[in-house]
Amino acid sequence: MTSLSSPVSLHADVGPGQPDPSPELDALYRGFEEELLVPLWTEIGDLMPTTPRPTAQAHVWRWERLLRLAERSGDLVPVGRGGERRAIALANPGLGGAPFATPTLWAAIQYLNPREDAPVHRHTQNAFRFVVEGEGVWTVVDGDPVAMRRGDFLLTPGWQFHGHHNRSDRPMAWLDGLDIPFVHHIGSAFFETGPDQVPDRSAPDRSRAERLWAHPGLRPVASPGPSTSSPMAAYRWEHTDAALADQLALEREGHPGVVEPGHAAVRFSNPATGGDVMPTLRAEMHRLAAGARTAVRREVGSSVWQVFDGAGRVRVGDRDWGVTRGDLVVVPSWVPLTITADTGLDLFRFSDSPILERLHLDRVQVGAAAAPEPR
Amino acid sequence: MTSLSSPVSLHADVGPGQPDPSPELDALYRGFEEELLVPLWTEIGDLMPTTPRPTAQAHVWRWERLLRLAERSGDLVPVGRGGERRAIALANPGLGGAPFATPTLWAAIQYLNPREDAPVHRHTQNAFRFVVEGEGVWTVVDGDPVAMRRGDFLLTPGWQFHGHHNRSDRPMAWLDGLDIPFVHHIGSAFFETGPDQVPDRSAPDRSRAERLWAHPGLRPVASPGPSTSSPMAAYRWEHTDAALADQLALEREGHPGVVEPGHAAVRFSNPATGGDVMPTLRAEMHRLAAGARTAVRREVGSSVWQVFDGAGRVRVGDRDWGVTRGDLVVVPSWVPLTITADTGLDLFRFSDSPILERLHLDRVQVGAAAAPEPR
Amino acid sequence: MTSLSSPVSLHADVGPGQPDPSPELDALYRGFEEELLVPLWTEIGDLMPTTPRPTAQAHVWRWERLLRLAERSGDLVPVGRGGERRAIALANPGLGGAPFATPTLWAAIQYLNPREDAPVHRHTQNAFRFVVEGEGVWTVVDGDPVAMRRGDFLLTPGWQFHGHHNRSDRPMAWLDGLDIPFVHHIGSAFFETGPDQVPDRSAPDRSRAERLWAHPGLRPVASPGPSTSSPMAAYRWEHTDAALADQLALEREGHPGVVEPGHAAVRFSNPATGGDVMPTLRAEMHRLAAGARTAVRREVGSSVWQVFDGAGRVRVGDRDWGVTRGDLVVVPSWVPLTITADTGLDLFRFSDSPILERLHLDRVQVGAAAAPEPR
Amino acid sequence: MTSLSSPVSLHADVGPGQPDPSPELDALYRGFEEELLVPLWTEIGDLMPTTPRPTAQAHVWRWERLLRLAERSGDLVPVGRGGERRAIALANPGLGGAPFATPTLWAAIQYLNPREDAPVHRHTQNAFRFVVEGEGVWTVVDGDPVAMRRGDFLLTPGWQFHGHHNRSDRPMAWLDGLDIPFVHHIGSAFFETGPDQVPDRSAPDRSRAERLWAHPGLRPVASPGPSTSSPMAAYRWEHTDAALADQLALEREGHPGVVEPGHAAVRFSNPATGGDVMPTLRAEMHRLAAGARTAVRREVGSSVWQVFDGAGRVRVGDRDWGVTRGDLVVVPSWVPLTITADTGLDLFRFSDSPILERLHLDRVQVGAAAAPEPR
Repeated sequence: MTSLSSPVSLHADVGPGQPDPSPELDALYRGFEEELLVPLWTEIGDLMPTTPRPTAQAHVWRWERLLRLAERSGDLVPVGRGGERRAIALANPGLGGAPFATPTLWAAIQYLNPREDAPVHRHTQNAFRFVVEGEGVWTVVDGDPVAMRRGDFLLTPGWQFHGHHNRSDRPMAWLDGLDIPFVHHIGSAFFETGPDQVPDRSAPDRSRAERLWAHPGLRPVASPGPSTSSPMAAYRWEHTDAALADQLALEREGHPGVVEPGHAAVRFSNPATGGDVMPTLRAEMHRLAAGARTAVRREVGSSVWQVFDGAGRVRVGDRDWGVTRGDLVVVPSWVPLTITADTGLDLFRFSDSPILERLHLDRVQVGAAAAPEPR
Repeated sequence: MTSLSSPVSLHADVGPGQPDPSPELDALYRGFEEELLVPLWTEIGDLMPTTPRPTAQAHVWRWERLLRLAERSGDLVPVGRGGERRAIALANPGLGGAPFATPTLWAAIQYLNPREDAPVHRHTQNAFRFVVEGEGVWTVVDGDPVAMRRGDFLLTPGWQFHGHHNRSDRPMAWLDGLDIPFVHHIGSAFFETGPDQVPDRSAPDRSRAERLWAHPGLRPVASPGPSTSSPMAAYRWEHTDAALADQLALEREGHPGVVEPGHAAVRFSNPATGGDVMPTLRAEMHRLAAGARTAVRREVGSSVWQVFDGAGRVRVGDRDWGVTRGDLVVVPSWVPLTITADTGLDLFRFSDSPILERLHLDRVQVGAAAAPEPR
Repeated sequence: MTSLSSPVSLHADVGPGQPDPSPELDALYRGFEEELLVPLWTEIGDLMPTTPRPTAQAHVWRWERLLRLAERSGDLVPVGRGGERRAIALANPGLGGAPFATPTLWAAIQYLNPREDAPVHRHTQNAFRFVVEGEGVWTVVDGDPVAMRRGDFLLTPGWQFHGHHNRSDRPMAWLDGLDIPFVHHIGSAFFETGPDQVPDRSAPDRSRAERLWAHPGLRPVASPGPSTSSPMAAYRWEHTDAALADQLALEREGHPGVVEPGHAAVRFSNPATGGDVMPTLRAEMHRLAAGARTAVRREVGSSVWQVFDGAGRVRVGDRDWGVTRGDLVVVPSWVPLTITADTGLDLFRFSDSPILERLHLDRVQVGAAAAPEPR
Repeated sequence: MTSLSSPVSLHADVGPGQPDPSPELDALYRGFEEELLVPLWTEIGDLMPTTPRPTAQAHVWRWERLLRLAERSGDLVPVGRGGERRAIALANPGLGGAPFATPTLWAAIQYLNPREDAPVHRHTQNAFRFVVEGEGVWTVVDGDPVAMRRGDFLLTPGWQFHGHHNRSDRPMAWLDGLDIPFVHHIGSAFFETGPDQVPDRSAPDRSRAERLWAHPGLRPVASPGPSTSSPMAAYRWEHTDAALADQLALEREGHPGVVEPGHAAVRFSNPATGGDVMPTLRAEMHRLAAGARTAVRREVGSSVWQVFDGAGRVRVGDRDWGVTRGDLVVVPSWVPLTITADTGLDLFRFSDSPILERLHLDRVQVGAAAAPEPR
């Protein structure tokens, strides 16, 4: 979509509905430039395509390589005030080198050395952590220490103070997901620093947020009303795993529950509203039985998938990759996606769907109709 | 409030703002009667009191006596099509003998003999079961068998087919709560019969609804969107107990979570919305530490409390009772309530609060100000 | 439904699912009475009918007779503190003499003599006025004087202070609608007195509320956010009339807009939410072209209709009346209704639909299927 | 914010929290580039500033110059299939030449010659027209002809077919506002063509949408329920003008209603919900009394203002312009704004506030605290 940032092309071939070239037209177009104006008629193909033409590209990042670079950063890069986090972000090849997985989503590997602290701060960007392997770090969110362990999904909603510290003698890495690109685009970024170290260095097995909220269908009477984000702080793997196993078992017994044959999925939700965990981000865990294959599906909005366990293939538009533990795949808006499980395959997914849905811009297409458009 | 159903009193003492008695006034009042009219000025004291004057009365029912009569009914009364259920309802002494615990709430003990079936039907009234003791019955809700065990809270939202059957060799009794009086008053009762026996006679430990929904903060991606009632079917005692224990432990550690000192409480909620389990009924479990005492509290709307475990005292307005396992206490609208725990005390509570809140008629008053009004 | 307030019938014929009479059963039933209990199986036919069996009855009240009695009250009954209002309410013949048009709705004629004040008070009951004829009274709602004129619909949402005063030399009568019976039943009535006379005795043509809110599709930026009730205070006849005329004109031109052939209708709505004007009450104006006839329709919930202009016939269940200006017809829950217009016919309607809808107890049936059930 | 699209700066001065330069670090950064990764610590200042640092700049466009170029386009550029519209968009100087007024908002002058048609199409982008002068064009939205006249605000919500035609012998120009940049960024653009000419060439004074919906506080009973966008199609100047006049009159009489002294404002709203007219766009009309001056105000999110009448000064951050009829001013996110009225001053404003509010990213600051930050 480079034409958007280029000067108006003065001598392009005359397309349908375009004016004939002439010195007068050239003068008019120069007048536009002088007055900081751009006509619709030369740009409409890019601005108003028949179907979305995302600038982001489908791409895969390999966990093994991310981890190697993160480890090297652990040697060379301090974690402290100013840099704030030892986080290394996916930079979509279609987005000009910016550290954006998609136009709305940030995905990064974050790395903390043994006994290290990431200083406390807060920002309007919504954040989560997902742990593909390891343990030993506690993230302290508004004063509440939250253990991080393989399979856990952990929240840091916008404007809550948070820092991390590694209580163990081993380094730990995990996936960070945020809405940084969206907040950057829309101009709503605020940031504030807190203490250099986390205020509560205890290491409880469960956070206080979980003790109040992580009981199925139960909410504390004394707790404040529904907030804009989930109060639950941590979604533990043992529950996610059990929920996915239940769906596949129900399928075997002949009952509804799975998304499609061999494909179980749960959405992390705000127990106070039933909605998404944070206003801009959706997060889900998917499980495919060995040999299962998802229907071709495309959605308005972008998403990032990370393999949590197992091996399979991911096809996004006309790209196709074998994937294994930790690998990250970016799916741009409206590009068809199919996943095939070689072994049993667990995948974490996050997306900007709440943005699209709250603004009534969402669309989904499932099945044959979602075959890739000619490009 | 008997004057509401009496003919206009023709020779009452002349109160403030009342017309002077006269033959002309008598004639006017006779004219009102003939035309099916009633003036406001003679009724306003009852219709528009300074604060609510509920017709229902505070009262206690003893579980031991209920159970004895239910057992006797088990000998004498069949369960089958026509009578439908062996359920015996609290009839509030202020409500003229109708089987209504309050103007909105129905509370009954239901009793099923060994190997007995209660036939399948459905109705627009919302229903739940709460099990104070025993087990062995499965309630089958829209085809899904739901085990009933001590401490469990089980839903039958409006217009879902349901029947019960006792799989064991022992009788079982439990508490039924419904919005029968409200639905009756408002004229929205529909009823339809189903099969005479429950369609699925299996006896799973967990219902299919729980396998899909009873995972904290997780919702099935494939499930239909938020419905008007909770899809969860069963809220198990192990979770409720753990949530209450967590709140009291948090209090001991100096963190928020309890309603007030020594008083933990959870609300049963719809995981798809975070709201109440059904449109007209709220249900909660409360736990008081031994020696704790609740602040005086009054609320618009009525409620029924059942002691689940322990012993204590309940004061409602100017009435006061010692209570123990299974005892039921009715609290009318705006009557002050205080509960004192002799031992650790667990109480189940249900109320019509969702009606009041959805219609913006709710009010709550806590503390000294809630001292009983002069009556 | 008298059985609900009678002692359990000990020797009723044994119906389906009922126990056989026996001395033991008599003893059991006496035990129930002693313990304030009532079994479901003897009451279920009344409590859980196949379709609603409202206790209220369809009935008509003639405006001419109401007005004559109101005028006579104007001679004999003062308006002042204590009695508060010279209002005379419809007492549904099925509701035991209580001043209730239906179990939820109050409908009354209110009458004010020349230069008279109705004192200021407030209550949690929601109220409106509808003016079938006359003018000269201002109702002052939270200090804002609101002129009352033929065809106007005027709001006094719950807990807003209000009084009326007649600025003219002629008496004035109008229809009052409230949710008194519902609030009475549910126990949520609060009441507070204000000054004996209205605080602002000016007589503006438009209220301040209208000046802020009665501009189509426009809301004041400075105004507080959506409240539970409409901030608009007055809905003027000129707008209602124009909206109804537009719908019938659109129908003549072949465009959608009317409810059914020859039947235009508008709902009075809260411009801050698009919802009903008050949490418990819906109000609408209907216009039938001469000769039009509405489809048979029944709804859960009750309503009151008042003829505003013209003449026609109203059929409610198996009752049938000719009606003319000012006549009031009560339609109980689920009773089929058809209206036929002899001349062009304008009708005001109010109902408890918001209660039903907010609690998901609403049902509507239109057409042949709504033929009266056998009674 | 150019660093976002630049390669990682390898030898920047070492800021707080940054690693010391070294050959190893260079190697690491090269590794990042190879793997399409970007570290947070070098970018955090741009990505997570203390307060928003919008890339868009405050700027003014003069109506007179826009109109002259539009007229010239009328001579040289056809309106037809392919180019679709003779629309010329503001290209914010901070946005690299793209035709975007802000990162979310499109603002353009559209121009139609006498008797000309703009062909029918539809798109997911939400659109409106605002008419600063002229008349004679009808925009036909989903088949409903909507007259366009000075002061009118006219809707074309997403995915509704629409075309325009000029019924008069004079050209007409107006302001188009859309969410093109936002939809482009988020990847949700769909487009479909319709007929080359508008299907209904009649020229009614009022659209059918207005006849159904533009009656204050009244909604058609037969109309479908609340949609995502306003069904009203046209907001006429006579109503907007009256509402603004009412607010200033109320202020003179000592009553609330205005935003601040001498500053009246109305928001165009969806009568079916009370919310904004479309999911992504807010539109308002403001009126300042001569001599009035607004408090300094800043908001998260961007907006475009157009002077409708009068003359005054607009200060945005450290920029300051005198403005008169038709002039357009762009206000980026969080930049302080003050408007001073020399004469009475009417201003149309549109913004992306619904996006911010629905995603809980909105913030507003009014008063002294909003003084420009040091830059």
